[in-house]
Amino acid sequence: MTTFIHPQAICESDAVGNGTRVWAFAHVMRGAVVGVDCNIGDGAFIESGAVLGDRVTLKNQVMVWDGVTIGDDAFIGPGVIFTNDRNPRSPRMERVKARYADPGRWRLATHVARGASLGAGAVILPGVKIGEFAMVGAGAVVTRDVKPFQLAAGNPAASRGWACFCGMRLNEKLTCEACQAAFGFDGDRLYPAEQ
Amino acid sequence: MTTFIHPQAICESDAVGNGTRVWAFAHVMRGAVVGVDCNIGDGAFIESGAVLGDRVTLKNQVMVWDGVTIGDDAFIGPGVIFTNDRNPRSPRMERVKARYADPGRWRLATHVARGASLGAGAVILPGVKIGEFAMVGAGAVVTRDVKPFQLAAGNPAASRGWACFCGMRLNEKLTCEACQAAFGFDGDRLYPAEQ
Amino acid sequence: MTTFIHPQAICESDAVGNGTRVWAFAHVMRGAVVGVDCNIGDGAFIESGAVLGDRVTLKNQVMVWDGVTIGDDAFIGPGVIFTNDRNPRSPRMERVKARYADPGRWRLATHVARGASLGAGAVILPGVKIGEFAMVGAGAVVTRDVKPFQLAAGNPAASRGWACFCGMRLNEKLTCEACQAAFGFDGDRLYPAEQ
Repeated sequence: MTTFIHPQAICESDAVGNGTRVWAFAHVMRGAVVGVDCNIGDGAFIESGAVLGDRVTLKNQVMVWDGVTIGDDAFIGPGVIFTNDRNPRSPRMERVKARYADPGRWRLATHVARGASLGAGAVILPGVKIGEFAMVGAGAVVTRDVKPFQLAAGNPAASRGWACFCGMRLNEKLTCEACQAAFGFDGDRLYPAEQ
Repeated sequence: MTTFIHPQAICESDAVGNGTRVWAFAHVMRGAVVGVDCNIGDGAFIESGAVLGDRVTLKNQVMVWDGVTIGDDAFIGPGVIFTNDRNPRSPRMERVKARYADPGRWRLATHVARGASLGAGAVILPGVKIGEFAMVGAGAVVTRDVKPFQLAAGNPAASRGWACFCGMRLNEKLTCEACQAAFGFDGDRLYPAEQ
Repeated sequence: MTTFIHPQAICESDAVGNGTRVWAFAHVMRGAVVGVDCNIGDGAFIESGAVLGDRVTLKNQVMVWDGVTIGDDAFIGPGVIFTNDRNPRSPRMERVKARYADPGRWRLATHVARGASLGAGAVILPGVKIGEFAMVGAGAVVTRDVKPFQLAAGNPAASRGWACFCGMRLNEKLTCEACQAAFGFDGDRLYPAEQ
């Protein structure tokens, strides 16, 4: 198993894991880290400083910037956009040059935990944490943290229920009718009943 | 009249109709079907299994997946994103591999009927049907079917009125002030008064 | 200082200013005008007839169409989509061919004033004016004009407060706690207290 880089992709990173495929018009910059067995769709962009775990699916046109880390087995849907600056201005404008000279003054860290899914076209505000196996709906604009297993949708994204490991929505008894996994709350956090 | 493929596009399909143009950085996969006289903008992506009719306009960066069919004369605005999986997870994750081995367990069909328009950046949830000459507003997130001639916008998309064949919004008398076409209801469906 | 065009970009315009960089898979069409010291990200598209000022940042995948003008020092976030047709139909459809033969019957002008910022994934409806140093939130769908210094977010975008030259949100006293600039109203318009 080796890395596959499409002849019309650009891969400048030497930290792309075995079995990972990078498709046409995608661009992985020097200094980006991508784990094993990932799939990086057409036109996706991974900036220097971004870190992806193993078996991550990055669908077409996803943009991942410096400051973003993505856990193992995450699904990042087509056209998902990450961000890393809450108050962006054009950095060559005279009034803001000093701020942009120091990444500590503008760059925020965003984290997607393992197994989470971000639906097509979701926009993720900077500094947000998305919990394990969370499910963000297509077209959501995520302005706050999403809890593990939480289902969030809308603009701004709000809670719509809970999702199973397998992606199905849990029923009112916090059970998955597809794979029979059961869950329960500890405070406002959902946990699998046994594991 | 022959097919035009930009030298920096990738066209692997042998089912692209006469007069169709495929522009730079677009990718039409093997097994995708595209009708005659279509225009496929820069960076658009058409997956194996997708089917487009004749004279379809696919603006830049549109993504069309397996399971999506688009009727004649449809307009798909820049950056529109289709989807085909309601509960996406990364398919190489151990817990979901079995589901992804069988397309019948995850892939839904989406249909855009002839003459419909999808505004810029709209996100179309899987399994949705968009009726003839419907008009979906820019930035809409379409979670339910849209009726023929219906105008829908917002996140989630809701009805905002009705549109003419020509794209103009109908007035309160269900008439188009631009082209004088008249419409009427039969139940909750709009039909042209004569045709 | 000269223009940098990435070897995998396409630049057909001869009106791109000194110091401007055009990155991979971006496409600047013949007849597009781009000022000095701009940064045009991967996969961005600038159509014939679009005009950008100096020091503009166009992040990856932004699409700028004929009829759009962008002032000096503007920041256009990743995946922002402009539009220029309020009632789009596929222009090769028989019923609308006549309209599309005359740009005056479909093309609207959109303007982003100097120093303004558009957040990631924002969609800008045609005919809108975005004022100087305005700040449009990530994922916003802008359907109406945005005033100078105004902060607008949501779908449809609505006012959420006011932003400083530097991008920070003003406090209740209309002062920037980051750079101490003070502002005041004249009617419903915000102006810097001294300049």
